[in-house]
Amino acid sequence: MHKRLLIPGPTEVSAEMLREQVRFMIGHRSKEFTELYTGIIEKLKRFFQLPNDYKAAVTTSSGTLWFDIVGRSIVKEKALVCANGAFSERFGKAIEDCGKKVDFLKAEWGKAIKPDMIAEKLGSEEYDTLALCHNETSTGVRNPIYEIGKMVRREYPSVMIAIDSISGMVGDKTLPSEIGCDVIFASTQKCFAIPPGLAVGFVSDRILERAREVPNRGLYTNLVRIFDYYEKKHQTPFTPNIPLLYALDKRMRLLLEETHEGVYQRHKTMAEYTQKWAKKHFALFAESGYESITVTCVKNTLGKSVKELNEKLEERHLMISNGYGRLAEQTFRIGHMGEWDLAGIKEALWHIDDIWGLEK
Amino acid sequence: MHKRLLIPGPTEVSAEMLREQVRFMIGHRSKEFTELYTGIIEKLKRFFQLPNDYKAAVTTSSGTLWFDIVGRSIVKEKALVCANGAFSERFGKAIEDCGKKVDFLKAEWGKAIKPDMIAEKLGSEEYDTLALCHNETSTGVRNPIYEIGKMVRREYPSVMIAIDSISGMVGDKTLPSEIGCDVIFASTQKCFAIPPGLAVGFVSDRILERAREVPNRGLYTNLVRIFDYYEKKHQTPFTPNIPLLYALDKRMRLLLEETHEGVYQRHKTMAEYTQKWAKKHFALFAESGYESITVTCVKNTLGKSVKELNEKLEERHLMISNGYGRLAEQTFRIGHMGEWDLAGIKEALWHIDDIWGLEK
Repeated sequence: MHKRLLIPGPTEVSAEMLREQVRFMIGHRSKEFTELYTGIIEKLKRFFQLPNDYKAAVTTSSGTLWFDIVGRSIVKEKALVCANGAFSERFGKAIEDCGKKVDFLKAEWGKAIKPDMIAEKLGSEEYDTLALCHNETSTGVRNPIYEIGKMVRREYPSVMIAIDSISGMVGDKTLPSEIGCDVIFASTQKCFAIPPGLAVGFVSDRILERAREVPNRGLYTNLVRIFDYYEKKHQTPFTPNIPLLYALDKRMRLLLEETHEGVYQRHKTMAEYTQKWAKKHFALFAESGYESITVTCVKNTLGKSVKELNEKLEERHLMISNGYGRLAEQTFRIGHMGEWDLAGIKEALWHIDDIWGLEK
Repeated sequence: MHKRLLIPGPTEVSAEMLREQVRFMIGHRSKEFTELYTGIIEKLKRFFQLPNDYKAAVTTSSGTLWFDIVGRSIVKEKALVCANGAFSERFGKAIEDCGKKVDFLKAEWGKAIKPDMIAEKLGSEEYDTLALCHNETSTGVRNPIYEIGKMVRREYPSVMIAIDSISGMVGDKTLPSEIGCDVIFASTQKCFAIPPGLAVGFVSDRILERAREVPNRGLYTNLVRIFDYYEKKHQTPFTPNIPLLYALDKRMRLLLEETHEGVYQRHKTMAEYTQKWAKKHFALFAESGYESITVTCVKNTLGKSVKELNEKLEERHLMISNGYGRLAEQTFRIGHMGEWDLAGIKEALWHIDDIWGLEK
């Protein structure tokens, strides 16, 4: 039996979804491909309720490519980057490494970034872009992107809002136009629950206009090219990962059946159960009220060995994740997203209780 | 029955290879992943006979990402780009779009770029990088990369040589250190005969040293990060496409069994048969002596309808490709690479003879 993944990505992929990948190849300039790809785009638009001034695309890459896309195609001169974990820090560093100026708005790891903190910074200097993580996979913190989006659109309408959702998208509510963000992206190995190798991105029309003004966007990192090519040909500009597009098409059909609200409620239920369990035996690493609903980061208050736990979980065909980087043994993380449901989460937490002898 | 692909990519992928993709996911920071990935890297090193001062990597992307990697991480100020087809023109344009200076050394489409043409340009101005395509997929021309590499290394040793091999690698001889190039790359949907979604790249140690001096390399396009991460962790810096790595591992095992020379001879035999057929009924688009051994571009001297041919081939479960861009009806292209062997090519050409009523 294989090890079922409760790590924050890659998440568990069902045998059914894996089998979607075995269909034979088709030409990526063929009618069959256009049908497949436009079908996916339409389903993405429906599930994420995109109005006419938003567009969707799929890139053949890790989600990380979109850090470069933001750095190369969106930031003109200077970005404000909210950094409250490993991934948001990396987002800012990537923009800097694209040769753009970055100011970091830092919060302690485990704390959320609030609208008023952002307002203060945006009021004090000129920024053309705000970049942040929705779901900080390293700390289990969910930044309040709806409140942030609304405030920025209202008070600083010229600032483009770029959000890395990654492990949040699908499981958590991520409706781009309700958030009011200009670009939000995620990779497929998190809540989409298909293998890694694709990233999904949504953009506003106004950010595409901005991108046209940014020089030296490159080719693979050129946001304009991705969307212009789709407008003209209804295909991808570069040869895409066809097997994963088959799987994504199937996934979108299943998600639409379950509905955006249904998927959210399923994830919320798993999160609440996990958080309650964590608070009973340990403590949550995330600030109260800002807990992610897809990844729970547990403060290892009992000083248990996470490494040993995973060794024992392996015998039970399960795997969770240790803390990220310097939090390796101080925290551990449980990804409850994608294919998982409450029954599976209860089962997994029962195994941890049993291994560690935690009282019921 | 599915349509078997004789297009220049994606090429035909066998059911056996497609099935390699259905194994369950593993964590990309796990020991199992390290074993899988180092196994692939070792096999690549063996098949492509890399000496100690060359390294291999696999990226989760189309091959096109490597245009940006060259533009962002390798070219310091100015590149000379050999342009004799659609893909090499795009290579040069991509470097320009990364904000670097580019001079194009143009040859008519269908003609090869020769060492003396390059020598003349390199002697007349300062370039830090030479970029060219090995196998111009749009014209079926194979540039003499071994002769070019030797000349440049001897006469202009400070110039870095960047080669897009794409549809050439594996089928044609592509031994990086014998060529003397500093970076050569290809995507997996050509001669590797697995689906699109990964690119394979080989680099010299000296180009990694160069890359360290180039500012603003970005993150996903940062050559240094890819190789430093591997040195330190034996993993990929970003979540990789695990299913395709399973397939690539299997492919490398099969290629090693067949041997580099064996694979080359199989492709050479297919190319010679196809070229002979093309010359008997039509003419070759590529300059004599510079014909690709993986893609034959046929001059449509009889003015046949390629579109109609493909419609009829579809009934026979086959697909070839029309000409590229403005050559759409003036040429047609047959990709004879990857899973194909002489028997299959004979069969396919027999179908074309039969449909068009060409005399035997």
